[in-house]
Amino acid sequence: MTDQDFEMTPAAGNGLMDRRFFLSAGVAGGIAMLVAAPATANRPAWTQTPGSGMSSYGSPSSFEADVQRVGIGSQAGTVGSGASRTPLEQLEGVITPSGLHFERHHNGIPDIDPDQHKLLIHGLVDRSLSFSLETLARYPMTSRIQFLECSGNSGALLSPTPQERTCAQLHGLVAASEWTGVPLAVLLDEAGVKPGAKWLVAEGADAAMMSRSVPLDKAFDDALIALYQNGERLRPSNGYPMRLFLPGWEGNMSVKWLHRIKVTAAPAMTKDETSKYSDLQPDGTAQLFTFPMGVKSVITNPSGGLNMSKPGLYQITGLAWSGAGSINRVEVSADGGKSWATAALDAPVLTKNLTRFRTAWRWNGAPATLMSRAIDEHGSVQPTRDSLIAGRANGFFYHYNAIQAWQIASTGEVANVYA
Amino acid sequence: MTDQDFEMTPAAGNGLMDRRFFLSAGVAGGIAMLVAAPATANRPAWTQTPGSGMSSYGSPSSFEADVQRVGIGSQAGTVGSGASRTPLEQLEGVITPSGLHFERHHNGIPDIDPDQHKLLIHGLVDRSLSFSLETLARYPMTSRIQFLECSGNSGALLSPTPQERTCAQLHGLVAASEWTGVPLAVLLDEAGVKPGAKWLVAEGADAAMMSRSVPLDKAFDDALIALYQNGERLRPSNGYPMRLFLPGWEGNMSVKWLHRIKVTAAPAMTKDETSKYSDLQPDGTAQLFTFPMGVKSVITNPSGGLNMSKPGLYQITGLAWSGAGSINRVEVSADGGKSWATAALDAPVLTKNLTRFRTAWRWNGAPATLMSRAIDEHGSVQPTRDSLIAGRANGFFYHYNAIQAWQIASTGEVANVYA
Repeated sequence: MTDQDFEMTPAAGNGLMDRRFFLSAGVAGGIAMLVAAPATANRPAWTQTPGSGMSSYGSPSSFEADVQRVGIGSQAGTVGSGASRTPLEQLEGVITPSGLHFERHHNGIPDIDPDQHKLLIHGLVDRSLSFSLETLARYPMTSRIQFLECSGNSGALLSPTPQERTCAQLHGLVAASEWTGVPLAVLLDEAGVKPGAKWLVAEGADAAMMSRSVPLDKAFDDALIALYQNGERLRPSNGYPMRLFLPGWEGNMSVKWLHRIKVTAAPAMTKDETSKYSDLQPDGTAQLFTFPMGVKSVITNPSGGLNMSKPGLYQITGLAWSGAGSINRVEVSADGGKSWATAALDAPVLTKNLTRFRTAWRWNGAPATLMSRAIDEHGSVQPTRDSLIAGRANGFFYHYNAIQAWQIASTGEVANVYA
Repeated sequence: MTDQDFEMTPAAGNGLMDRRFFLSAGVAGGIAMLVAAPATANRPAWTQTPGSGMSSYGSPSSFEADVQRVGIGSQAGTVGSGASRTPLEQLEGVITPSGLHFERHHNGIPDIDPDQHKLLIHGLVDRSLSFSLETLARYPMTSRIQFLECSGNSGALLSPTPQERTCAQLHGLVAASEWTGVPLAVLLDEAGVKPGAKWLVAEGADAAMMSRSVPLDKAFDDALIALYQNGERLRPSNGYPMRLFLPGWEGNMSVKWLHRIKVTAAPAMTKDETSKYSDLQPDGTAQLFTFPMGVKSVITNPSGGLNMSKPGLYQITGLAWSGAGSINRVEVSADGGKSWATAALDAPVLTKNLTRFRTAWRWNGAPATLMSRAIDEHGSVQPTRDSLIAGRANGFFYHYNAIQAWQIASTGEVANVYA
């Protein structure tokens, strides 16, 4: 298939190309610089002087010093109660480096001595049990690469007018890691759950003693007591030495610094599930317990604050995910939603994980509006902003999963817009 | 299924349990400590004082300061020419944190300014092309989670007597990452490979100008110009700002700090593929170009230098991989190879990636010899040390992939043995 073939059968309007572009080669056409001959005259300095030595724990290049968590903000009168965001537009693939995983703390990061930390399981059980880290290491573990998203992610898009923000500032409360730990089901079976038990209350050992009620069905389904993240022990900001991990559910429930699980007949109605993380309804009541995060996607590149250098061929890429399972399809539009092209997905597509999508786009230099739309394995389709807002009360803040639109100006500047 | 059922149908000798143990729950039996009631009297200090604030780039807990690369060693008369190893026995899952990815440098780590770095493709091509980082970002990329292993990994096991070493010291020149980059096939097609071209020579921009010859078939198959590792830009020690990545092939060929690819009719016979990385034969000749790494596995826990605290139930876990594809099965023996149990494998099992295996073992406190044996999708079986050595000349150092044996003493001490 030649470049011309692809051009003659565009996948959607305004320059979107077939996803087979990514399965075939040789159609890029003129991005790279032609050179007459190898330039061997000017060997850079680093080829002429021995480099530096090895290290016990490596770091990024000093030229990447601007790759940082963004929007680090504590709430008034506190230190460490607030959030920082993953710089999505500076990253690739789906694994988030642990040092750049977003943070959301309710009373700062505790500095826990792992030798003094225990997990207690009690309440409606046959045997109250206490687990040290050493004890947990002897149980069967498992690893899963899955996303974690704060239920308040993307809430700034409820603002009546679009704010000048980057992808990280808008959507950076999501990240994916390889989580390794002991299935909670194993520990609950060891403790012996009594008849009548329907919930558990998970409590953290931070100074907020953050606690959430979790249905036992979820605990027995795919909940983990996570001990490792991306191969090494959890970072302190992600719950060292252990956290609950509830795949696909709002991040706040994956209680960090977990030290107690009480098996109960009913939810505990803790402050952390009543004063926050509830969804205001039109009649003024609050709906509790919206657990799974909705199907969602965002184009990370190009995105707000970035610049397209000049017309020509570009890769459009972004992330899609669903708390209900795996991503079935991602569609991309370059004409503000009039027409859609199916994007290529990086393998493997895993359940409740971020999925990287990619589309080739030949930008003609005119203003354009880019959008992405995810569909999950259950056929759930990411909603438009209008339809999401139409179904909600004023003040309904959490669980925003609408389609993001990025406006490309003729200058190449990219901005957050409502379209 | 009860604990007793598992006990009555062991999967192999000396306490190895069925891998369904990992799919079922409630059979652990008495690892955890029974507690009479929740101990609420002594709330640890970190629940009573606000924790610390957020950071722009996170780090591990200070309690994990001993989790470091090991065996950092430079060759005589140089700084930074040598190796450091991944601390396999301290990690879990399959993703290696980039800061703990093993290093192997031939003249230290260059500090490359990415704005001054270009990739040149020339030689037997229609058009010589030069690619900047910005240019490459516009091409279609792809991500893959795959292993990288130094061909000299595990060579210490050729020593006539078993050395007192840890798993990392023996086998730590292997790691797995999510690599993201542009398929080399796309760039070669853009340059236009001329008839008669069969190889390419890849050259690094370090002070060793490390260079290796690569068959074009591999370049068009699954070679990447890798730009990202585990989501962020490559670390300097792994080739920042770009490296060649040849899945499954000896690590040295995945040339770091890549700045030049010359398409050729024949291999270049560079110093890095003749003075090293060749396999000595019984007749004194050296066999060149042993590219794929063999099928291999190692138990990372328990392993050399660790201690089992007391008899009882343990998880045996480790890593398996094959340069020829995916792992089909891993077997574990607790009786020095007399009988074998099939281990559980963490999903997803990916081609040319590390695969985490796990087996439950009830240690009776007597001395025992643990082994693991990997079989890949092509039916290749990891060899015993004896059979590997029998087929090799003295001085044949690279590509050691034999079965590792760990001896558990009655004291619980674990040691490297030949068995």
